[in-house]
Amino acid sequence: MAEQVGDKRMAVIGLGSMGFGMARSLVDAGFHVTGFDVRPDVVARFVAQGGHGADSTASAAAEAAIIVVVVVNADQTEGVLFGPQGLVATAQQGSVIISCATMAPERARALAAKVHGAGLLYLDAPISGGAQRAAQGELTILASGSREAFAAAQPALDALAATLHDLGDEPGTGAAYKIVNQLLAGVHIAVACEAITFAKRLDLDLAKVYEVITGSAGNSWMFENRIPHVLEGDYTPRSAVEIFTKDLGIVADISRSERFATPMAASALQLFLMTASAGMGRDDDTSVARLYAQIAGLDLPNGKAPA
Amino acid sequence: MAEQVGDKRMAVIGLGSMGFGMARSLVDAGFHVTGFDVRPDVVARFVAQGGHGADSTASAAAEAAIIVVVVVNADQTEGVLFGPQGLVATAQQGSVIISCATMAPERARALAAKVHGAGLLYLDAPISGGAQRAAQGELTILASGSREAFAAAQPALDALAATLHDLGDEPGTGAAYKIVNQLLAGVHIAVACEAITFAKRLDLDLAKVYEVITGSAGNSWMFENRIPHVLEGDYTPRSAVEIFTKDLGIVADISRSERFATPMAASALQLFLMTASAGMGRDDDTSVARLYAQIAGLDLPNGKAPA
Repeated sequence: MAEQVGDKRMAVIGLGSMGFGMARSLVDAGFHVTGFDVRPDVVARFVAQGGHGADSTASAAAEAAIIVVVVVNADQTEGVLFGPQGLVATAQQGSVIISCATMAPERARALAAKVHGAGLLYLDAPISGGAQRAAQGELTILASGSREAFAAAQPALDALAATLHDLGDEPGTGAAYKIVNQLLAGVHIAVACEAITFAKRLDLDLAKVYEVITGSAGNSWMFENRIPHVLEGDYTPRSAVEIFTKDLGIVADISRSERFATPMAASALQLFLMTASAGMGRDDDTSVARLYAQIAGLDLPNGKAPA
Repeated sequence: MAEQVGDKRMAVIGLGSMGFGMARSLVDAGFHVTGFDVRPDVVARFVAQGGHGADSTASAAAEAAIIVVVVVNADQTEGVLFGPQGLVATAQQGSVIISCATMAPERARALAAKVHGAGLLYLDAPISGGAQRAAQGELTILASGSREAFAAAQPALDALAATLHDLGDEPGTGAAYKIVNQLLAGVHIAVACEAITFAKRLDLDLAKVYEVITGSAGNSWMFENRIPHVLEGDYTPRSAVEIFTKDLGIVADISRSERFATPMAASALQLFLMTASAGMGRDDDTSVARLYAQIAGLDLPNGKAPA
């Protein structure tokens, strides 16, 4: 196949908003990419855009040297690798798994050991940057693993990442950095929603609040990125509330197992859980602002929670 | 006095780290500035650097057209204006008070009404930016008040501010924007300290954590500005823990009076209170990280709380 960049075939397992964008950017880089998702229509859409399709994880990965797994959590990753039709059974010896889900470091270490035991390589490689940057091949990747795993994964990492952090030889280290980031990100979203609704309660001009805060010491990446959703009343999920019930849930699990209290993360987790329990779990993570508005009877744009 | 920019004399009441820098930047701009502080040695230092000294608030303000009040809170501001030797008794009719302390909007409105009643002008003008930017005349000022108050204060505002937000005609609005900023700033410091110590518990390389986070979606202005203090183990107060027990205390007061719950700010307030109760109230606000380290037995640079 002379039109390919190299002879390395790739597979992407999980074509959600992140995975689809990543698969597309690998295609754009000239690779032969086979995609699999539990939704056949999403696979068909990927095929229509230059990818190849498969009807199971096992068949998607069978001829791939590099297998990118972009599912929601550790359990799904384990299922894709070792469950019924799991890809470890059919993958070629020496191929590399690039595992992108956010998970507890301990889970990443256990998965890596099991994958290595089956004769494959494993790169712990959580991602950051959102769907748009995924599609542009401009993700931040927080990677750790053996030098062999890095070397085998390099062609895909080059195509996917604007910033690749090499965090050392131990799987689980990438996961640990990612969860520290998610602790901060989750708290920053929750407090951004608290602050903008507090400002509304004080009858301030919210567009002006956004202008003042983004130029002041109270700013955060999340305040600047997310609060426009609230000002526009647009709760279409760019990233959903349930992402943070999951990731702050991992923080809570680690807190208990490590005996290390994280009261800020715990408060934020409760707010995301309340927002989910009020029926907004699949909506944009800024729906926490709608929770505050609903409780206090504030008039935000589209601020009513769905019935 | 031909060397003066104009004939407007100015006074600065309160020569703490912010007030001293502001007084200095007014002197640097060519104004005749009289400073007062309860510490005579600080007044002497200001005189040695080109200012004029006074031995009471009343005498400092007696000949000033513009009076900048830079004390800690609403009670101190009220004392400086209306207490024994309060300056309102001696100030010239039509002079303007520039009130910089962070306080509840209601307090700012009440003070403004009382000052107006005495024939003076009042600009609600909380400041942001820290001591260094104060000394460089590069503060952010969140101002609200009558057009007359703005006009009268303009020469000082020009010399003090890199960014002046005109937030409208009502005293109290500037205070409200400032307290929204402080809600965010306080939570961001608390969670920055939680995250960096959580990372330590996970045995991560903290310098690398700083590099990764400041380039990721978990970043905040406070994380980027404050965490170097923790990495260097330098708890010399640039801004003290007790600033945030005060400002998040104002948020808590407003929460109760407005019946608007602020659980994120409430958690952060408890952490600052715990840090103060452990003997670190006058130390740098990143001492919250020492609290976490002390509780969990982590080995941070100079991470032991003072005995």
